[in-house]
Amino acid sequence: MLQPLKIYTDVIIKIILVGKLRNDFIKKGVEEYLKRIKTYSKIEIIDIPNLTHLPPPQALIREEELIKRHIKESHNIALDREGVPLTSYDLAIKIKSFYESSKDFCISFIIGGIFGLSENIKKNSDLVISLSKLTFTHEFALLILLEQIYRSFKIIKNEPYHY
Amino acid sequence: MLQPLKIYTDVIIKIILVGKLRNDFIKKGVEEYLKRIKTYSKIEIIDIPNLTHLPPPQALIREEELIKRHIKESHNIALDREGVPLTSYDLAIKIKSFYESSKDFCISFIIGGIFGLSENIKKNSDLVISLSKLTFTHEFALLILLEQIYRSFKIIKNEPYHY
Repeated sequence: MLQPLKIYTDVIIKIILVGKLRNDFIKKGVEEYLKRIKTYSKIEIIDIPNLTHLPPPQALIREEELIKRHIKESHNIALDREGVPLTSYDLAIKIKSFYESSKDFCISFIIGGIFGLSENIKKNSDLVISLSKLTFTHEFALLILLEQIYRSFKIIKNEPYHY
Repeated sequence: MLQPLKIYTDVIIKIILVGKLRNDFIKKGVEEYLKRIKTYSKIEIIDIPNLTHLPPPQALIREEELIKRHIKESHNIALDREGVPLTSYDLAIKIKSFYESSKDFCISFIIGGIFGLSENIKKNSDLVISLSKLTFTHEFALLILLEQIYRSFKIIKNEPYHY
């Protein structure tokens, strides 16, 4: 069992998402988990446009510039299929340790669009995690991540998980 | 690129799901992907009650009996966090090969409830796959699996994937 959470209220979780939400059921699920997570933490989603009209290398560079504006002075976790696969318990431990460190007041999860994330973003992140070996749309990655953040707080607080 | 699919119309995909769908956004997402998949294949979801009023070992035995009624004469794929992690492309190749084998006319994916699946179900399945090292609810597992089955058909048919 994890020890109770000590430092708490000043931390904000940011999710930097490249690409819009298109499917209504995803929008509804995202709303649902944001509401649930907000009983534990501040959280916000920052939309970055997916520049699909550009060739992938240029799009990645431009998207990188837009992402960088939001991840200064933040503990940054990039999502990438080739990243470190974590269990839900591992993720809870990571989130708890960020909350308890005095230096980080913002945790940013970065989800790439159709072209993924630039090598620079991955290289300069504090951690690159993988949700799965499967390929997900950015929308599915967001929904899964939110459910796992909610689950992390349930694990950290040792509360039962209600679907 | 995968070769075009040869044998097709007689195969049915069954998804055996232990536990009810509770969240509305999941129900909507499931409907959406069933509709999309049906342009490629017959598919049905079979609900098995999750016997949460029983102690886990007894529940698993009873759930196993109920599952077994539906998986005779079927190529069976159990889902388990400790199973083989597949990429979306690996899954597409598996599904394509089942479609092209003359002996299997039913592919069943088996998703456990809150207690997972019995050892017997896993041992007697043709394949045990893992969607992720993360723990998902049975509902999330279903939604992710459906999206991946849809994605598999897009890969098999070499069609662009529209979100």
